[in-house]
Amino acid sequence: MTAMNAFYAQSGGVTAVINATACGVIETARCHKDFISNIYAGKNGIIGALQEDMIDTNLESKKTIASLRYLPGGVFGSARYKLKGFKENRLEYERLIEVFKAHNIGYFFYNGGNDSMDTAHKVSQISKTMGYPVTCLGIPKTVDNDLPVTDNCPGFGSVAKYVAVSTQEAAMDVISMSKTSTKVFIMEVMGRHAGWIAAAGGLAKKHPDDAPHIILFPEVAFNKQVFLKHVKACVKQHDYCVIVASEGARYANGKFLAETGTKDAFGHAQLGGVASVLAEMISQNLGFKYHYAIADYLQRSARHLASAVDVTQAYAVGKAAVEMAIKGQTAMMPIIKRISDKPYKWKIDQVALSRVANKEKMLPKRFIAKDNFSITPACRRYLLPLIQGEDYPPYNEGLPKKIQLKNISVPKLLSNNFVV
Amino acid sequence: MTAMNAFYAQSGGVTAVINATACGVIETARCHKDFISNIYAGKNGIIGALQEDMIDTNLESKKTIASLRYLPGGVFGSARYKLKGFKENRLEYERLIEVFKAHNIGYFFYNGGNDSMDTAHKVSQISKTMGYPVTCLGIPKTVDNDLPVTDNCPGFGSVAKYVAVSTQEAAMDVISMSKTSTKVFIMEVMGRHAGWIAAAGGLAKKHPDDAPHIILFPEVAFNKQVFLKHVKACVKQHDYCVIVASEGARYANGKFLAETGTKDAFGHAQLGGVASVLAEMISQNLGFKYHYAIADYLQRSARHLASAVDVTQAYAVGKAAVEMAIKGQTAMMPIIKRISDKPYKWKIDQVALSRVANKEKMLPKRFIAKDNFSITPACRRYLLPLIQGEDYPPYNEGLPKKIQLKNISVPKLLSNNFVV
Repeated sequence: MTAMNAFYAQSGGVTAVINATACGVIETARCHKDFISNIYAGKNGIIGALQEDMIDTNLESKKTIASLRYLPGGVFGSARYKLKGFKENRLEYERLIEVFKAHNIGYFFYNGGNDSMDTAHKVSQISKTMGYPVTCLGIPKTVDNDLPVTDNCPGFGSVAKYVAVSTQEAAMDVISMSKTSTKVFIMEVMGRHAGWIAAAGGLAKKHPDDAPHIILFPEVAFNKQVFLKHVKACVKQHDYCVIVASEGARYANGKFLAETGTKDAFGHAQLGGVASVLAEMISQNLGFKYHYAIADYLQRSARHLASAVDVTQAYAVGKAAVEMAIKGQTAMMPIIKRISDKPYKWKIDQVALSRVANKEKMLPKRFIAKDNFSITPACRRYLLPLIQGEDYPPYNEGLPKKIQLKNISVPKLLSNNFVV
Repeated sequence: MTAMNAFYAQSGGVTAVINATACGVIETARCHKDFISNIYAGKNGIIGALQEDMIDTNLESKKTIASLRYLPGGVFGSARYKLKGFKENRLEYERLIEVFKAHNIGYFFYNGGNDSMDTAHKVSQISKTMGYPVTCLGIPKTVDNDLPVTDNCPGFGSVAKYVAVSTQEAAMDVISMSKTSTKVFIMEVMGRHAGWIAAAGGLAKKHPDDAPHIILFPEVAFNKQVFLKHVKACVKQHDYCVIVASEGARYANGKFLAETGTKDAFGHAQLGGVASVLAEMISQNLGFKYHYAIADYLQRSARHLASAVDVTQAYAVGKAAVEMAIKGQTAMMPIIKRISDKPYKWKIDQVALSRVANKEKMLPKRFIAKDNFSITPACRRYLLPLIQGEDYPPYNEGLPKKIQLKNISVPKLLSNNFVV
């Protein structure tokens, strides 16, 4: 068979290890030149394909590609851009195929969450309809850990490690100050819909007295009275209280805590985070001195604290996607299948994209303890293997080494521009 | 001479490396049993002395003491408790001496910032007046880096490294999302009075295009129009903008940005951080999508990312204080003296407590660039050596190893309680 080019794009929110997946894709493709001549990386994700704006990865050195393993963020640029259905916007899909044809692209690797798996699935379908079949592989990535079927998602293990380590460290700070100063510390973490990241904070608690003392999950309706009662009891017992709050914490009516009607001096609605809302609530009702941290992007870009298991898996799904593609498998996604908890054993398996597209996996009820504020032993057994091992990046002058890609564009072959 | 006991206490906000100093004090004292029989550590800082609540460190194993080097927070508890002047509260000083006498304490090691150096100085004076002279040594500690005379303060190098690394990592995230999502990222850092920590964010900027694009120092009056103009220009040029904002950023009239009159739905004044105020300002005036992180305690407890130079120096000042004490020096503080920038060379020197007590060292003008939003090459030369080297803690099951001290109290010998 004749070798063809491949298109690789990163999609949605980036992670500390998505570039390790890119590394896995490119290094593996380079071992199979008889199938894949070059990987064209989409500049800013799928937009790069639509606008024929692609980076020629063959022009990057072996060393540069290897160092992607250590680089947070999305090295080629990502995009929050969801292709609509065929009916609403068939033009976009046709444009993709037009670009793929022009550049002799026979493989499409789409590295993202459930939206992206839907896109990859649709591209596979339409490419057949249009008589230019493209081998389409989804590659899982999301800090939210909410993709179904796969045991876990690359990107999650590192954010989980970051949240658990940071909670443990901050708690040591708070406990030493609580006699005369801060009594309550709130750590706001990501996870608008699913409580996986908040749950990871629970890994810092090895003994019943340990922090965090309260975890707020999006899956549990927030009850102000019960919450305040818990905070008060916790401070009484331990002299301090550490709370891990998901940004998605919400009331029974579905309203996020983060939008509880605070207004600025001009009457504009204030979109504070959940941490500041909780802090004010505690201060006004209980009078405790508080501090809060909002980890925001720090948690998902903290490559300096990546989980070694996560890095290994992120690389492995990239590698597997390429191997599946050259075997002719399409409309599939490699997944991580757990074989055992202790010792942790896993292998790469696969699933049809149709089974993961647009589906979310919430934290199951059996992972939330009866008090609604902590995780169960089953949850700990699930989470603990995912944060194992440290995989430190190389440093240069005190900071993680930066790398500069050549980032040379693939020459455009089409005369028309496409506006997204 | 007869060996006596020593009292050691941690004071004020804790750091990622203050326990490395405790380690230096205790390990060194153990080598000089002919002078110092035991180190009694104050539970919750100086309050432990006032209330005769002290931990017997002789009962902790060699291994436990060695592992303090890796532990963030203040292992014996710290306190925000400032002893007043002799006139206002002579009772407190007399109580200290009473406790010291009762426990045969001849050495006082006080590990803190400029307030604490004032206390150590006063204790030295009053102990003489009361006819029970105590050898008093201050030991520098503060993430704020605002102690005078010493070239830098243990605790600062690690927070500087944390802020620089986190800014660099988050910037890689933002740049990959900027095409379709976040344009502006704000990183709020500590430093209510001095801009040292904010300045450290500037270390992430190696090339003119690099983040951070804007640093807000407490030393520079905030000008809303100029700031917004810079943000707008930055997004136009780079498609994104990363801002490091000191919590102490303020207007020309001295008012902190963080207290700009925001009120909640009930009319209570909202004490938001500077990041949310800037974010709203940018959103309302420029319409850019933003994200912000508030590192808060994470930055000063991040032992997982400590600077090796900082850990070494934190240990060294503890060791030096003990060595000075057994030489009979009193009312002194060991300092770090820089010999050269490149290669970075330093040594331990010393200063009289009277020269550092209650004095603050601001970021000098020559360290702030003419645009008021970045650091000068001189500032970089000063800061860079302080973040050098990684000194990773040992891990256990994915998290930094916890240690549990025996924490056995020294039996009380006084009949009266002291209320603080």
